[in-house]
Amino acid sequence: MAVYTEVSDGDLRAFVQEYDIGEVISCKGIAEGVENSNYLLQTDRGSHILTLYEKRVDPGDLPFFIGLMEHLADQGLRCPTPLAGRDGRRLRSLCGRPAAIISFLKGLWPRHITAGHCARLGAAMADLHLKGLSFPGSRPNSLGPSAWRPLFQLEAHRADEVKPGLADFLTAELDILDSRWPAGLPTGIIHADLFPDNVFFQDEEVSGLIDFYFACTDYLAYDIAVCLNAWCFEEDGCFNVTKAHLMLASYQRTRPLSREEFEALPILARGASMRFLLTRLYDWLNTPAGAFVRRKDPLEYERKLRFHASAGGTAAYGIDWIPAPEAV
Amino acid sequence: MAVYTEVSDGDLRAFVQEYDIGEVISCKGIAEGVENSNYLLQTDRGSHILTLYEKRVDPGDLPFFIGLMEHLADQGLRCPTPLAGRDGRRLRSLCGRPAAIISFLKGLWPRHITAGHCARLGAAMADLHLKGLSFPGSRPNSLGPSAWRPLFQLEAHRADEVKPGLADFLTAELDILDSRWPAGLPTGIIHADLFPDNVFFQDEEVSGLIDFYFACTDYLAYDIAVCLNAWCFEEDGCFNVTKAHLMLASYQRTRPLSREEFEALPILARGASMRFLLTRLYDWLNTPAGAFVRRKDPLEYERKLRFHASAGGTAAYGIDWIPAPEAV
Repeated sequence: MAVYTEVSDGDLRAFVQEYDIGEVISCKGIAEGVENSNYLLQTDRGSHILTLYEKRVDPGDLPFFIGLMEHLADQGLRCPTPLAGRDGRRLRSLCGRPAAIISFLKGLWPRHITAGHCARLGAAMADLHLKGLSFPGSRPNSLGPSAWRPLFQLEAHRADEVKPGLADFLTAELDILDSRWPAGLPTGIIHADLFPDNVFFQDEEVSGLIDFYFACTDYLAYDIAVCLNAWCFEEDGCFNVTKAHLMLASYQRTRPLSREEFEALPILARGASMRFLLTRLYDWLNTPAGAFVRRKDPLEYERKLRFHASAGGTAAYGIDWIPAPEAV
Repeated sequence: MAVYTEVSDGDLRAFVQEYDIGEVISCKGIAEGVENSNYLLQTDRGSHILTLYEKRVDPGDLPFFIGLMEHLADQGLRCPTPLAGRDGRRLRSLCGRPAAIISFLKGLWPRHITAGHCARLGAAMADLHLKGLSFPGSRPNSLGPSAWRPLFQLEAHRADEVKPGLADFLTAELDILDSRWPAGLPTGIIHADLFPDNVFFQDEEVSGLIDFYFACTDYLAYDIAVCLNAWCFEEDGCFNVTKAHLMLASYQRTRPLSREEFEALPILARGASMRFLLTRLYDWLNTPAGAFVRRKDPLEYERKLRFHASAGGTAAYGIDWIPAPEAV
């Protein structure tokens, strides 16, 4: 949630004239997307999103992100699409930053997660995974398992400021993740950050997936693991097996999981907890006082990590493996 | 700039059904308004602003603000108008807070202030003052001169943390303001916070004034003094006499100033500097680390206050008094 860059009206109008989208009526900074400045840009022809890419996004990755959104939209996935300007370019510069105008998606992201949302999410995520298979680009997961130990070591000496014993706990968990991380699972494009605020719903259906700026090439089942964490825990910390069951069942109806992928979900969810715990820990300890961001609690993910560490196997999640039809 | 309250999709849809404005298409928290939560609410019939009144607004003042906006819009001023629901009510409750749906205004607020903006602002402000004269409501200025000393005393012991010597300087200035504050100037409804982010422009013309939540009954010329501070200083701290001249000239073409009002502008601007310095100082010293607001620099207003303290008279501002036509 962030608006960092102030765009002057003159700069904005000049920028918009590079596109065939009409005249600017209004442009308001919106609380959407963590890494970039986002504006809801209204012209006399409709609504768009103006995104300025701030320093946490590597400009070298932008052609991948822009190309991926274009590919997925071409395949019929409801996701933001970067508009081409009159010169055909989808990425240009505004206020010294890379910038793009992105199509506007209808819908609201759910503040109160229901089992129905989880079921719809499962199908939408599987659809994303299938449609991503034909995308020729690839991008390593810069926040994957090999990044966790270095990220932890940056803040290891201060981790116990957040909770006594946290450093030792994370050290032990990193060792376990190293030794048990699965190999050779089906790989493709994953969203990698499919939290509720990145999934829009309208009339109880998924109306769009947004914010592809963590998308990368990794185990498809890792995306499911991120979502088990982000969608299936209640606010009191309890894991809701009904939500997990519905999410997995609807995912598998669109894209069946291999037995290995299914069995790997607990360790993948444990790793996904580590990933979000570590980035939140880093942000918690490094956000300057008065900075214009709301820090997220790293300990929410410490509790999730402990759940996965004690779960044992898939039975604790209430999820069932559904063999692929051809395998029956 | 703030979005504090998260509104669930269910609560939002139920709230919007109290109005005859169509179905919700999207609702995004926007970076507009300092005191309240504001959302750009799009329905299949158009754009609106949804405002939730947060704790810094006294609920007892809301009927005044709502009534004033309605009155001014009825008089033809371009300003946000609270919509009436199916039951005729313009103010109801959402997420436990008072809330209203407000008409959407086109335009952008200027990030780079030109002399032309200042000229247009002068006329728009005078128009607001004239149209407010027929409004029957009134509200004391809770941040007027009588509030300054108590506000200062809350933080006097810490003022020198911000700048050594600041406490003594402010004490001396408060004494001067007390002894020289004018009496008996023409009074009416003022906006009291007419900063550039509250004035929208489109095609070089003022397209709307927003954020009436500091509006009150006070000297009309005090509103001009607030604007001299907010619009006529350059970023390097220099006072731009051309901007001030144009603002005052266009104001007086719509609403002539009495000689007393005109001569009072330097002391009013000195007081207006004190008011914004004090609230910024309070916020600077009391905003918790990690809070989701961008603190404004109180020392910007200390420099403005010093300018006014050394100005002597109206000549330093480059402004001219234009006698009312009937007085010529």
